[in-house]
Amino acid sequence: MIKINENFLKLQASYLFAEIKNRTAAFQKAHPDREIIKLGIGDVTRPLPPACIQAFHRAVDEMTDTRTFRGYGPEQGYEFLRDKIAVNDFQARGADIAADEIFISDGAKCDNGNIQEIFSEDIKVAIPDPVYPVYVDTNVMAGRTGSYNNGRYDDIVYLEGNRENGFIPALPGETVDLIYLCFPNNPSGAVISKARLKEWVDYARANKAIILYDAAYESFIRDDELPRSIFEIEGARDVAIEFRSFSKTAGFTGTRCAFTVVPKSCTAYSDDGAKQPLHALWYRRQSTKFNGVSYPVQRAAEAVYSEEGQTQTKGLIDYYLKNAALIRREISALGFECIGGENSPYIWIDGKSDSWEFFDRLLDKAGVVCTPGAGFGRCGEGYIRISAFNNYENVEKAMRKIKEALE
Amino acid sequence: MIKINENFLKLQASYLFAEIKNRTAAFQKAHPDREIIKLGIGDVTRPLPPACIQAFHRAVDEMTDTRTFRGYGPEQGYEFLRDKIAVNDFQARGADIAADEIFISDGAKCDNGNIQEIFSEDIKVAIPDPVYPVYVDTNVMAGRTGSYNNGRYDDIVYLEGNRENGFIPALPGETVDLIYLCFPNNPSGAVISKARLKEWVDYARANKAIILYDAAYESFIRDDELPRSIFEIEGARDVAIEFRSFSKTAGFTGTRCAFTVVPKSCTAYSDDGAKQPLHALWYRRQSTKFNGVSYPVQRAAEAVYSEEGQTQTKGLIDYYLKNAALIRREISALGFECIGGENSPYIWIDGKSDSWEFFDRLLDKAGVVCTPGAGFGRCGEGYIRISAFNNYENVEKAMRKIKEALE
Repeated sequence: MIKINENFLKLQASYLFAEIKNRTAAFQKAHPDREIIKLGIGDVTRPLPPACIQAFHRAVDEMTDTRTFRGYGPEQGYEFLRDKIAVNDFQARGADIAADEIFISDGAKCDNGNIQEIFSEDIKVAIPDPVYPVYVDTNVMAGRTGSYNNGRYDDIVYLEGNRENGFIPALPGETVDLIYLCFPNNPSGAVISKARLKEWVDYARANKAIILYDAAYESFIRDDELPRSIFEIEGARDVAIEFRSFSKTAGFTGTRCAFTVVPKSCTAYSDDGAKQPLHALWYRRQSTKFNGVSYPVQRAAEAVYSEEGQTQTKGLIDYYLKNAALIRREISALGFECIGGENSPYIWIDGKSDSWEFFDRLLDKAGVVCTPGAGFGRCGEGYIRISAFNNYENVEKAMRKIKEALE
Repeated sequence: MIKINENFLKLQASYLFAEIKNRTAAFQKAHPDREIIKLGIGDVTRPLPPACIQAFHRAVDEMTDTRTFRGYGPEQGYEFLRDKIAVNDFQARGADIAADEIFISDGAKCDNGNIQEIFSEDIKVAIPDPVYPVYVDTNVMAGRTGSYNNGRYDDIVYLEGNRENGFIPALPGETVDLIYLCFPNNPSGAVISKARLKEWVDYARANKAIILYDAAYESFIRDDELPRSIFEIEGARDVAIEFRSFSKTAGFTGTRCAFTVVPKSCTAYSDDGAKQPLHALWYRRQSTKFNGVSYPVQRAAEAVYSEEGQTQTKGLIDYYLKNAALIRREISALGFECIGGENSPYIWIDGKSDSWEFFDRLLDKAGVVCTPGAGFGRCGEGYIRISAFNNYENVEKAMRKIKEALE
């Protein structure tokens, strides 16, 4: 008799975005004449940079001729793209990463979700709260957790973010083996300093742990003192894997291109205590279960690193950061404490009330859809997340309406 | 201490294509003036159909304007594509498959590799021999096998193909839970009749097993009596999952688009004996670990179903089938028994000698690179695979050289 993976039965329904959709639809039905502005979802709204569009078209044209046609590409991604990433995103910032330590993929979510496969089932996993639900859910599926009780899974070490620590969790009190970190953070927008990140790297080195560092929002960092990659931190090459994406950097959420960096010196251990390089394991995982990213998409991503591409993507991020600054300024002026929005597209607001209550207030009184913080974990309760991914005119209008509603 | 997934250590080095590359390079170095024709790899060589190219360009242009820009798409794929697949590939052939039973992905290899995650670790898996190595390797990684001994993993039930059964394996002698089948077969090119496939469906129904049916090469089927989908077989909806791809159908190996069909009535069981629909489990897996296929790529795939797209893709397959027919005719005339090449791009040749010995003979004497059958499993020993994916002129030349060399 064929049996299912029972761990799937532990998973909770992904209630958050469905419930937002339901409440928004109910409101729209009750008030067909009211305008709704959505500042809830973390999806980009601006077009692809022209440099990417041009490269995309050129590569599609190459597929029309046997002499330039491309079939299966290298599973790890084309060298033309990996080279530019290594030089521009890492070496230029003093991070010693080589092109063959980069794995091109179709999404950071995929890589974040799949990476746990190369580790033992029998490890202690530490995950922030609040957090992007993929880290938790993929470990539940893999059988690394107990059942769900009072909003949390047994056997996971939750790294708590709160007002006191500014949503930068403290080092865990017990020994853990695999640590998920995400900065700039989704959902809180918090950023981490080099000094604080160094503490995590030192912890991992001392405890033979691995850090999975999600840097999907690094392009929003404008403060030069802040690290954009964990590999800017000394010693990180031996204990960290980093996830990056073109989704937010260049508007690729619908185009799909991302990458993961696994340094060749990064190792875990087999049962006999021998060091095992994770680069070889991930390469084997990817070459067995993945067949590379669409060639024209890789060419479009490559164009991000051209001179025009760099100017255009900076302009794209500037646009969203202007939205974020406006949101942070207006909401702060109303007397609410905010985190994020300075080196991040997310503004995390202490609503001084139940998350869903505040969500309903904003929807009913201002017609603005946000994301209730409680949906990201127990520590998100009382907060809401507002996203800067929208047109500036809509953000201005939303802020005006929120001001009228809450003042 | 962070520990690795020890199952990865059981994996054998993927020796086959690396060894082919090494021997070819050595030959080229020793004979710099000799021409080499590669009929080894299963990758397409002809350009994308013009209808796909046009749709691809149009969709890229949509990404230049906020009004038509697309961000995150549905994780299951766009309805415009799923609808056309359901109607054209299934309903038109009497297979009762609905659009919401189709999951668009970036590759059949990914889906073939990931699907085992939704099943228990504690099931008996049956895998053909010879076979595409992904089925075996992904089950090794998941811990469903013992160690590797004498060319096989313990705890897997190998379904043996050989001259006697024409590489259509017999039903297993012991009870199994998960069955991999691939028709038209890679590497043997064998095809299965409706009556024989019905036996497998009946077996699965009787034994509460699930069939994973890899139909990546279905577009090469020209014999109307042969099933192109397992869902043409009565009762299959409850016990089968099917994998399809645009890679071979429309030359998408470098463009990346595929899909998997999980009927809503297809169920496995939880430990308590309750039926568990696999559609819900796969949906949860995909929405947690996957973020959809590039929008322009989905539009390019949609164009396969336009009138011009259908004509052009048929022309593409006809081209390769003409190559296949020539290979089969010439090799047969030399006195070698062949399987495949009629409803398949692969010709599987009984070399009447050791696989690698025959490989070396073809390379040394004719300058033609093939794939030794032994690389696909113990039952492939003595055979070689020749692929029809090349230009007709090259195939003609290769056959001339083989004839001169072997006659």
